[in-house]
Amino acid sequence: MRVAILGFGTVGQSVAKILVSGRSGLQLMRVFNRNVERKQVEWIPDAVDWTEKIDEVFASDVDVVVELIGGLDPAGPWIQRALMEGKSVVTANKQVIANDGARLSELAVAKGVCLNFEAAVAGVVPIISSIRNGLVADNLHRIRGVLNGTCNFLLTTMGASEASFDEVLADAQERGYAEADPSADLDGVDAQAKLSILSAIGLKRLIDPNEIACRSIRGVGRLDFEAAGLLGCGIRQVSTVELTEGVDGVRAEVGPAMVELGSRVAQVSGNENVVVVDGISCGEVTLIGQGAGGDPTAVAIVSDLLAIASGTRAPNLFPSSGPSHQVGTMGKRLHYVRVTGAQSAARILSGLGVEATRTLKDAGDQVRFVTGRCTTEAVESALKSSASTSGDRAENDVVLPIID
Amino acid sequence: MRVAILGFGTVGQSVAKILVSGRSGLQLMRVFNRNVERKQVEWIPDAVDWTEKIDEVFASDVDVVVELIGGLDPAGPWIQRALMEGKSVVTANKQVIANDGARLSELAVAKGVCLNFEAAVAGVVPIISSIRNGLVADNLHRIRGVLNGTCNFLLTTMGASEASFDEVLADAQERGYAEADPSADLDGVDAQAKLSILSAIGLKRLIDPNEIACRSIRGVGRLDFEAAGLLGCGIRQVSTVELTEGVDGVRAEVGPAMVELGSRVAQVSGNENVVVVDGISCGEVTLIGQGAGGDPTAVAIVSDLLAIASGTRAPNLFPSSGPSHQVGTMGKRLHYVRVTGAQSAARILSGLGVEATRTLKDAGDQVRFVTGRCTTEAVESALKSSASTSGDRAENDVVLPIID
Repeated sequence: MRVAILGFGTVGQSVAKILVSGRSGLQLMRVFNRNVERKQVEWIPDAVDWTEKIDEVFASDVDVVVELIGGLDPAGPWIQRALMEGKSVVTANKQVIANDGARLSELAVAKGVCLNFEAAVAGVVPIISSIRNGLVADNLHRIRGVLNGTCNFLLTTMGASEASFDEVLADAQERGYAEADPSADLDGVDAQAKLSILSAIGLKRLIDPNEIACRSIRGVGRLDFEAAGLLGCGIRQVSTVELTEGVDGVRAEVGPAMVELGSRVAQVSGNENVVVVDGISCGEVTLIGQGAGGDPTAVAIVSDLLAIASGTRAPNLFPSSGPSHQVGTMGKRLHYVRVTGAQSAARILSGLGVEATRTLKDAGDQVRFVTGRCTTEAVESALKSSASTSGDRAENDVVLPIID
Repeated sequence: MRVAILGFGTVGQSVAKILVSGRSGLQLMRVFNRNVERKQVEWIPDAVDWTEKIDEVFASDVDVVVELIGGLDPAGPWIQRALMEGKSVVTANKQVIANDGARLSELAVAKGVCLNFEAAVAGVVPIISSIRNGLVADNLHRIRGVLNGTCNFLLTTMGASEASFDEVLADAQERGYAEADPSADLDGVDAQAKLSILSAIGLKRLIDPNEIACRSIRGVGRLDFEAAGLLGCGIRQVSTVELTEGVDGVRAEVGPAMVELGSRVAQVSGNENVVVVDGISCGEVTLIGQGAGGDPTAVAIVSDLLAIASGTRAPNLFPSSGPSHQVGTMGKRLHYVRVTGAQSAARILSGLGVEATRTLKDAGDQVRFVTGRCTTEAVESALKSSASTSGDRAENDVVLPIID
């Protein structure tokens, strides 16, 4: 099977290393990159073509295109074009698959080729293959996970040290664990895309990633980790999608949460990812592994390539393409709240119509407490109204649902 | 696709329930059981044939046989006969696959049919499909896990209560979590079979399950759980197989161990199983889920059926059948030791040529300590020699390797 790689960054190089090692039996034919000359390396055999002209790739005799460019454009149109030309595609592109995976998968089926994307969600964690194979006989009703390794690295490093958010972020950027512009990670855009893929293929609900309720981990500070310790919790960026009782109902969220230390999502540290799948018959099944990094991600990609080489025509996991389902918000839960200034916990709670289940010692001008069961939206609205009364800035408030 | 079920016990009934629900698109045609009359239930449609004559199944037009009888004989010969007749087989039979899986898989390939066995290892945990798919591009070098739900239930229940081993076992038998004769679970025979399957398909080393070093969990008592608490550990039945440096070298063991509370194998309780796979490129990948029970196991079996129905001819994961590899024993580690009577820790340690890394307070006539790094065989031999000197019975001694 003849393979072309689009994008020769960290992951592309790790994929190429496995291919040229010969042990996969796959043949690397072409490497595409912008300004390809500066990318050329000695360890790639001379027979491999380096090119910066995408048309050459489509016109060539490669059977499979590995797309590792990332982002919606031009990666999306190029994936479509490869499929149209009768070439299979293996991609790690969560944005394209989240936004257009159902339609592109139908196109692949129509053209008799494959579109595989194990690496688009949770790196090497074999979640797509598990949904496709070992768990396919069950009806899944919830998928929860830690899907962003950068957030997990930042939050677990803060949890284990005395450093501030900014210090930990700067350190992560220096080591290459966080990008220069870390917004997509910290603010949840990356996890939204991954979660919407899991919703589509695991729960059979197409949802628009941008409609998933999403809160940034920016603003989580030392006082919140101290509180987490007192509450027997850790802090993680948690992504959840679950079916609700109504017909076709689905709700989802991405954001920082307090997680009880015994829970599965608390048991990952560093850049690990975890996915916890809940099925009617299988109960809870948990998968943990490295969510990023060249070599682990390359394992997922080359495994996808080998499945195609073995002649496995994987069934299309997506439901029919069409309008997205409306995404509901999560139900009532306990929430940890930290507010600043002259605001009174009592007034906030009375606005919410619940009592505090726990009040922590004030820290300077910071008030911290745990609400009774209510929705996150209700807490945020009560905080906004309280801040406007007291003249404080609501954007400094911290609200973390507590997940068991 | 037309399906016959051999064996209508708990798992067979759960499989039948999914099949007759219609949502799988598979057709249940025949149910075989000894004295089948007493097994008949109303919720199976009239069109399904009940039979106690195995020849009727082989002569029928079913495409796939689901073998849920267990044990080597007659299940093994029947699996072979089904394959010879050109019928695919899905089985949960760890004994047959451990002892004869390589040869039967070759037979399936030769006959152009499938032999799938996801349910034979760790229940619903999708470990076979993960090795076959998401991780297939990597070279794995170690597989470790908690592969026996009954042992895990007993050990984690003891760890969380004040009950004795015999009390917990009696309770588990009453609830149906342990069999009337629990030897295969407690003494490791069940886990040996599962581990040898993982060795063959994951590490490509055929090993004889009976040659895996194996110690029973019988004898682990309250004093050992108290010690585990002091050492920051839990106690689990751990199964490990790993490659060693020599050509084709492999070593394996099954038995109770002290596991550090932060380790993956410590993070399963009740009847859960965990499998931790270590690969050169992927690092550590962990899968957790229910290791037994009708409904979870049925998910694994029906998923195997659906893979066959979709036309997926899964590649044979076994290395070529042939003589087994010799199984080595594990390397040097710390060991927790408890001995009774007049034996002296100092004399045992001097026999071992290591120092104690920790000594616990004596409890009555029980002496407990942690050795320096040495092999389990060296500890056992030192204990035997010490007991024969002091006139104590070595079979009451407890030796637990400490695993991080």
